[in-house]
Amino acid sequence: MKIGVVHLEILAITDDRHSVKELASIILKINKRIDYVHIRDKSKSVRELVFLLELLEEGGVEKRKIVLHDRLDLALIMGIPNIHLPGHGLPVKPVRERFPFMRIGCSVHSFKEACEAERDGANYVLYGHIYETNCKQGKTPKGLKELQEIKMKLDLPVYAIGGITPDKLAEIKKANTEGIAVMSGIFSAKNPEEAVLQYFQMCKEKTNEQLL
Amino acid sequence: MKIGVVHLEILAITDDRHSVKELASIILKINKRIDYVHIRDKSKSVRELVFLLELLEEGGVEKRKIVLHDRLDLALIMGIPNIHLPGHGLPVKPVRERFPFMRIGCSVHSFKEACEAERDGANYVLYGHIYETNCKQGKTPKGLKELQEIKMKLDLPVYAIGGITPDKLAEIKKANTEGIAVMSGIFSAKNPEEAVLQYFQMCKEKTNEQLL
Repeated sequence: MKIGVVHLEILAITDDRHSVKELASIILKINKRIDYVHIRDKSKSVRELVFLLELLEEGGVEKRKIVLHDRLDLALIMGIPNIHLPGHGLPVKPVRERFPFMRIGCSVHSFKEACEAERDGANYVLYGHIYETNCKQGKTPKGLKELQEIKMKLDLPVYAIGGITPDKLAEIKKANTEGIAVMSGIFSAKNPEEAVLQYFQMCKEKTNEQLL
Repeated sequence: MKIGVVHLEILAITDDRHSVKELASIILKINKRIDYVHIRDKSKSVRELVFLLELLEEGGVEKRKIVLHDRLDLALIMGIPNIHLPGHGLPVKPVRERFPFMRIGCSVHSFKEACEAERDGANYVLYGHIYETNCKQGKTPKGLKELQEIKMKLDLPVYAIGGITPDKLAEIKKANTEGIAVMSGIFSAKNPEEAVLQYFQMCKEKTNEQLL
């Protein structure tokens, strides 16, 4: 048994509940302790998102940390290298072929969908929802079993999503996943900066995990 | 005085009131008598629009006739050369710089906005609304005066839009505009094919207009 370090990346997903200025302010506060911020404010216009991206750039947020939801065109125009393609949006395969330089993510809900995402050229997937969450009320959470199967059989990086609170992180680390994606736990928290600190401490701390 | 021919191009704009299959069926029926079809079905997902574009391609609609509303990324992925950028969407200037091969349109409501569109690199504009229309209830129609000013002072191609019925076309021809854009007059008509025929006959017929 080795004493090892298991890090989880933190992908913070916006909750579409803040104004552009509020959102920029929150992101600037949490920026140093997250690995990516996934801009998923569906109710905002493209023009508003341009303004948000300008505020983030002025505030020093690196473009490599920003993931845009759905709007590949906005990513191309603003020089954002990461795009998350939702199920109702552009298919992964032609985006991979046409824009090989983009880092492409998508959401999957099964081992089968994860295989398809890998085959089509996704760079990573969000898998969930793992635990009960207000965003998916009435739907049975998937737990960690299938996630572990995905990680055992595929090379695809996976971020666990759905109801992930800091107390769940020890368990999630055992699934060998690359990271976690958190929306309401961060952006709907009373104090997003303190919330991120709790995730950060659990995601980045040393553990006694057995490394095989 | 010469006997001349003043043609107006017909740009048919979808009204977001039909299913994908219904819409494809209508477009295939009117295709030969229109110059462009502007896909502006905002409530449809990108995945549905991909399906629509596939149906149009199967039906033989040339890509050069299709204009996509807002979604530049979809246009790039599907090889559609025309994009209409709404006011809340991507700004014209960076799209022109990054994608010089695209034919870019936008909507303007004044001479000033038309000047900005020309400066930023738009290939054409829609100007309106010219006449009263259900889409712009309570807003005073602009008439043809400012349109004539735009056409006198700028080189920018302009399509007149808003409440344009076939009986208005003789008047519109005098404004020296390149064409007309019609939504409900075509797509909300009981028989879109017959409706287009009426526009077509007026837009493409020979006239006794004096050519200077």
